[in-house]
Amino acid sequence: MAHSISLRLGHPDPTTLNTLPFQQAVQRVMTSSQAANALAYGNEQGNIALMDYLVKRINQEQHLNLSAENLMITAGSTNALDMIARLYTQAGDAVIVEAPSYVDSLHVLRDHGVKLYAVPMDDEGMLPDELEALLKDLASKQIKPRLLYTIPNFHNPTGITASEARRTAIVKLARQYDLMIVEDDVYRDLAFEANIPPSYFALAGGENVIQIGSVSKTIAPGLRVGWIVACAEIVQRCVDCGTTQMGGGASPLSAQIVVEFCRQGDWDTHLEHIRNLYQTRRDTMLAALDLYMPPDVTWTQPAGGFFVWLTLPENKYAAVVKRQASERGVLVASGEGFFVNPADGQHHLRLTYSFASLDDIETAVRVLAEVVSA
Amino acid sequence: MAHSISLRLGHPDPTTLNTLPFQQAVQRVMTSSQAANALAYGNEQGNIALMDYLVKRINQEQHLNLSAENLMITAGSTNALDMIARLYTQAGDAVIVEAPSYVDSLHVLRDHGVKLYAVPMDDEGMLPDELEALLKDLASKQIKPRLLYTIPNFHNPTGITASEARRTAIVKLARQYDLMIVEDDVYRDLAFEANIPPSYFALAGGENVIQIGSVSKTIAPGLRVGWIVACAEIVQRCVDCGTTQMGGGASPLSAQIVVEFCRQGDWDTHLEHIRNLYQTRRDTMLAALDLYMPPDVTWTQPAGGFFVWLTLPENKYAAVVKRQASERGVLVASGEGFFVNPADGQHHLRLTYSFASLDDIETAVRVLAEVVSA
Repeated sequence: MAHSISLRLGHPDPTTLNTLPFQQAVQRVMTSSQAANALAYGNEQGNIALMDYLVKRINQEQHLNLSAENLMITAGSTNALDMIARLYTQAGDAVIVEAPSYVDSLHVLRDHGVKLYAVPMDDEGMLPDELEALLKDLASKQIKPRLLYTIPNFHNPTGITASEARRTAIVKLARQYDLMIVEDDVYRDLAFEANIPPSYFALAGGENVIQIGSVSKTIAPGLRVGWIVACAEIVQRCVDCGTTQMGGGASPLSAQIVVEFCRQGDWDTHLEHIRNLYQTRRDTMLAALDLYMPPDVTWTQPAGGFFVWLTLPENKYAAVVKRQASERGVLVASGEGFFVNPADGQHHLRLTYSFASLDDIETAVRVLAEVVSA
Repeated sequence: MAHSISLRLGHPDPTTLNTLPFQQAVQRVMTSSQAANALAYGNEQGNIALMDYLVKRINQEQHLNLSAENLMITAGSTNALDMIARLYTQAGDAVIVEAPSYVDSLHVLRDHGVKLYAVPMDDEGMLPDELEALLKDLASKQIKPRLLYTIPNFHNPTGITASEARRTAIVKLARQYDLMIVEDDVYRDLAFEANIPPSYFALAGGENVIQIGSVSKTIAPGLRVGWIVACAEIVQRCVDCGTTQMGGGASPLSAQIVVEFCRQGDWDTHLEHIRNLYQTRRDTMLAALDLYMPPDVTWTQPAGGFFVWLTLPENKYAAVVKRQASERGVLVASGEGFFVNPADGQHHLRLTYSFASLDDIETAVRVLAEVVSA
């Protein structure tokens, strides 16, 4: 086998990292008067210039009216989700997630000892009727779930974007049951076509919603820079927590590099480039799936992000397909890990189109189709 | 008042950050073939070159025989302590700390809902008899403490270094009661004079000890790079946890900058410089304390690190001294926050000598002495 092709991980294309404009941003930071500040302990809430930039940008994009007190810089979305779990749950608490959901988010939540409850989704997102049934059932058992964790745009692993009607219905239920929504929106900047529906944060008027953002998918994961958007009280609680006070937020150096890169317009130029790149790869993957896959296999039609979600017929097992594809040099993610109940994922595969070349995507899908058809 | 003088925070001197060799290390990273890797998601256990460098260095300094499986890179000591608390405690568990201890570590531990028990210390460190009495008392109540958190070298806030006899006695008790020691050793590289006693990790033969290190005090806090040293099983558990798998360890870019700076010998040269700098400041602070303080005030004699710990007579309150000093432009930390029982700190002040110039240190101590004597 020539080389293995990875459709496995949710990583940006390596060629999109360390571009010339990015290198120039680093160079400007290191030779500026800000460099020594960026190397010291930072402001607990985050780099103020980056906060200002993000508040303006998010206000414009989501039609919000945030001020600085509504945003905090974090060490990627990981640090954000971990902090929310630490501060807003206790071991044994109930947390609601989508079925499927991002495997490592489930892992982070489980490390905090919470009990996960899953709500199924279809091509429009989480099913409000199922959510309501779960909330009623939990209420009847005196269980008050602490958080609803959802990935509304270009969902990981399915690529699905929740419709506005679904979001509105879920916000209504969350309000009715006093449930905090954690809106993990790290793929938002990777919309290929139409506008995405209003965010949960916007629909809820900022009430009881924590939105998580990140530059990991669109600038560089290695910087570890993300943020939360929330009401002032929640942001303040995160700023006042032990890890933040100890210096454990985002790297001030990384944050300074990001703001230097963003505020000169380089992020926007870069986003145009990578949206085109990933859209072409998605198109190639969808075309190859159409061409090669047997008729009893179905898949999602992502409007952005990194992932296509494949559903195999009931007599085909994802773990077997994954192993056989791997033997032929094609790496994919099997569905089990993305479910609270792993058995629910045994006929699903996640395919990432962000990381492989067009030729490799076509080859990999052909090989996968052969494995599935065998 | 001309300007305020801060003896308040445990921060390195700003002039020691962004030195020319450091800037050159950044430049080398960004123009090397490693740059794109450093901007991608990193190896979960950490940058391999930095792990190799640290393993060799720590083996030499602590007379250990670590291999790569014994070390993990973390996002500063904060990320390390938070991860240990998340994985090795549950809400309600007992954790033992020194009295006093580092205020933000107490805060991190409390955010995990643990119950803190404090063991008093004297000029040689934590008192083993007191620790044994506590362990016996807890055992009699069927309480098994999960962790013993200690800062053995140039302790924050007291500046005290635990003697070898104390460490040996504490390791023995920890073994007897199956208690995991968390050895927060972030000031280790700032020894001014004599060799420091063997580490807890060395004395315990690596059994049931997690050692935490950091470059925040000696290269740059803004990088957010630290590490843990532990047995392979503990390291693996930390590598396998949700936040690590999600990408939430140290910034790969920061780690690459650190290894580039270290392996050319720049760290060692830099350490020589800053040890001299901080030693001179300590000497100035101790001399000023001798000169100005009334005879009923006592203080510690740190052999390294950043801090001197002041004990006021019983009729003088730290909070009052802090406020009155602040009104005269001198900022210090009052003792209360460093104790599980805040009242135990009401006659103590922590003075940091790392952050102020020699003139400012002398002025600040004089002002403090006037406030205390008034």
